[in-house]
Amino acid sequence: MALKSFVEVKSDSHFSIHNLPYGIFKHAGGSITTSRPGVAIGDYVLDLSEIHSAGLFDGPLLSNSDCFHQLLTELRLEIEVLSVASEVLVERSIIFAVAYMMKSNLNKFLELGKPAWKEARATLQKLLSSAEPSLQKNASLREKALLPMVQVEMLLPVAIGDYTDFFSSMHHAKNCGTIFRGPENPINPNWYHLPIAYHGRASSIVISGTDIVRPRGQGYPTGNSPPYFGPSRKLDFELEMAAVVGPGNDLGKPIDVNEAADHIFGVVLLNDWSARDIQAWEYVPLGPFLGKSFGTTISPWIVTLDALEPFACDAPNQIPKPLPYLAENISKNYDISLEVRVKPAGEEDSFTVTRSNFNHLYWTLTQQLTHHTINGCNLRPGDLLGTGTISGPEPESYGCLLELTWNGTKELPLGKTTRRFLEDGDEVIFSGCCKGNGYNVGFGTCSGKIVPSSP
Amino acid sequence: MALKSFVEVKSDSHFSIHNLPYGIFKHAGGSITTSRPGVAIGDYVLDLSEIHSAGLFDGPLLSNSDCFHQLLTELRLEIEVLSVASEVLVERSIIFAVAYMMKSNLNKFLELGKPAWKEARATLQKLLSSAEPSLQKNASLREKALLPMVQVEMLLPVAIGDYTDFFSSMHHAKNCGTIFRGPENPINPNWYHLPIAYHGRASSIVISGTDIVRPRGQGYPTGNSPPYFGPSRKLDFELEMAAVVGPGNDLGKPIDVNEAADHIFGVVLLNDWSARDIQAWEYVPLGPFLGKSFGTTISPWIVTLDALEPFACDAPNQIPKPLPYLAENISKNYDISLEVRVKPAGEEDSFTVTRSNFNHLYWTLTQQLTHHTINGCNLRPGDLLGTGTISGPEPESYGCLLELTWNGTKELPLGKTTRRFLEDGDEVIFSGCCKGNGYNVGFGTCSGKIVPSSP
Ligand SMILES: [Ca+2]
Ligand SMILES: [Ca+2]
Ligand SMILES: [Mg+2]
Ligand SMILES: [Mg+2]
Ligand code: NI
Repeated sequence: MALKSFVEVKSDSHFSIHNLPYGIFKHAGGSITTSRPGVAIGDYVLDLSEIHSAGLFDGPLLSNSDCFHQLLTELRLEIEVLSVASEVLVERSIIFAVAYMMKSNLNKFLELGKPAWKEARATLQKLLSSAEPSLQKNASLREKALLPMVQVEMLLPVAIGDYTDFFSSMHHAKNCGTIFRGPENPINPNWYHLPIAYHGRASSIVISGTDIVRPRGQGYPTGNSPPYFGPSRKLDFELEMAAVVGPGNDLGKPIDVNEAADHIFGVVLLNDWSARDIQAWEYVPLGPFLGKSFGTTISPWIVTLDALEPFACDAPNQIPKPLPYLAENISKNYDISLEVRVKPAGEEDSFTVTRSNFNHLYWTLTQQLTHHTINGCNLRPGDLLGTGTISGPEPESYGCLLELTWNGTKELPLGKTTRRFLEDGDEVIFSGCCKGNGYNVGFGTCSGKIVPSSP
Repeated sequence: MALKSFVEVKSDSHFSIHNLPYGIFKHAGGSITTSRPGVAIGDYVLDLSEIHSAGLFDGPLLSNSDCFHQLLTELRLEIEVLSVASEVLVERSIIFAVAYMMKSNLNKFLELGKPAWKEARATLQKLLSSAEPSLQKNASLREKALLPMVQVEMLLPVAIGDYTDFFSSMHHAKNCGTIFRGPENPINPNWYHLPIAYHGRASSIVISGTDIVRPRGQGYPTGNSPPYFGPSRKLDFELEMAAVVGPGNDLGKPIDVNEAADHIFGVVLLNDWSARDIQAWEYVPLGPFLGKSFGTTISPWIVTLDALEPFACDAPNQIPKPLPYLAENISKNYDISLEVRVKPAGEEDSFTVTRSNFNHLYWTLTQQLTHHTINGCNLRPGDLLGTGTISGPEPESYGCLLELTWNGTKELPLGKTTRRFLEDGDEVIFSGCCKGNGYNVGFGTCSGKIVPSSP
């Protein structure tokens, strides 16, 4: 596309001006380290609070919103004013500031909904374009607002009230069913009628780059002995993506499937780390619990549905036809290439272990979201809806080691070494990217390294 | 006990001076309706922010804490100061105040941990005792701080980050297993080795008194027809209690079972409303989801472990012996009488349908909590750990209609009418109480009425 940024964007960068994904970053600038909202452009992060303070969010919805608002600035101003008046109040103001800073996230922006998101995107694409001088020619603002990505630390972009994990790849469902129950009826009959899901753990969702401590837990007993207890022996990753919810719904008021896209802000990569031995022993009859809840990693940049729109493609034909509440006028998937690399402990290199694609999903994001609310369950801004492991039809596209090594019965070659499950020191790196005509809309990476259980 | 309050406490009141449970209430007083922390005493609520403002929390841990802090007061003061200085800042201060008010909860107090809880309890028992003049003889403070319970509205006491539901009554596990899988092996082998649980939905937890909209969803198909879709035909309650987490733990750092009690602030009643038809169709293989997530009701008053201590009793002997990480030096249950009444639609009276007791639980609260963290999962203040349905051994003590009507195969008499499952307009009322020598430590009620699905 003709749109070009004045910021240099290398040809292999995930973060072209067509992307502009949102995140929260921490930057040690000035006297205080603050966390702020930003968008990625090339090798830079654009600080949205600086852009807001400079009055450049000049559209009707965002010019008076405090959604990108850097509260610390205002509060320090208050402190100065107040320090004249009263010592006690100064102290209290500092307490408020700290409390607010710890909550820095995109939730308020997400709650504003599609019109505000479109306004922000239009404003930012214009500001960053090579044709527009207002930021390009303002050296002092550029220096404050455009920060080299290597100098910032990314944080969780949203406060996640609830996290749900679906099970929407038929290939994954079939492989798991075959491994655990045999090849006769690998997929349970309900799977074809509804997007199966379970509630996940919100507290243990961490940002890409966070180490994952190998979980301890119980595994199947052998014969009459007590169950195994100790560090998991079957630690796995699961290649997933997740929708980030925008405006929610009131309890008791389901969201219509044809309006569901308005409730999705964007998408991230998600690694649903799984301890297969813990999961296998605990999951009957109430589903996965400690086999999953020790950690879930997400990528820092939320790629918006708007940025993904050029990569929309038809979702698979669903047979049997879904019930009316799940029947969409337009049923969309997205062509997002996904890759998992593993860097084995002590090695310099990482090796690709799977190549998959978001378009292997059977149930769409909008069907997942609508199904989630059909019973009246309320979603809130920032909620995360994981897709489930995204496996394709070929063995090279399976989304977890359980499938790739067929539950540890086969070895997966990794350069000079091999793996059945993850070992301490192994690092797992997901990436995802949409290839446009001369530009990328990518997700960057979602990575985590396994560290040993604490004794 | 000899301890007596100057506030009248009727002999059947749940809220003696030995109890002092914590909640958050809303009171339309003065010019602005605010929500504040309080404790229940007889038919009154003691406003803890007024007690704090009056300087009566004079212990070392609470005198300088802002955990009961009524921020609106301070912020209005700021506004006054600031209005002299700058109009713009005044507006911003109002924004902060509103944001803070919406978050009013006990989480900060819970995070402080046991020493602060003990200090608060000692301070409040002294203040409310008939021997102590400071509140009793201060008419203006008494009028501000002691509010008739009928004049306040109770809100959710905590911000719940994550909600987990266990399955800790053997009688319930056995009955459900028998109903769904037959009498041969009703309880799965893993049940005896670990407290089985699943992640629940935090967003749809509501306070006692909130109407519950009948969920819609899919039920089992008959023959080759598509699945049933519509309002649930098997709506049920589940009699549970829940532990409210105090200080949490860091990701990757499990909590020792002998220290687990320090991480539990107190206990509430919990109704895990369940749609049995939705649950039965969806729950294989990932567990309950929409059959539960449409609503969960908790009682407003958190009864502390300190108040429950006189009612502690031995937990059942566990065979097989639990693994070392679940083996406690002291294994405690509590003698809490529980009752469920149902008020059928259109009737004046309610009828007792079950009488159970917290001491029917097989896994203790501390074992549940420790098991939850053994994989490194982090808990946060305000997290809720439901016990699972508390059924006793006799049919009159079963904790849900699924058991009481044996999955709708028997009718439960309710005055002039009967029920197999809940009908629109039915109200379900839980209560729980510990009977002391001349006093009660009770939970009040946890109620909800079924309203029809929205069309
Ligand atoms: Ca998963
Ligand atoms: Ca339950
Ligand atoms: Mg996980
Ligand atoms: Mg529930
Ligand atoms: Ni601003």
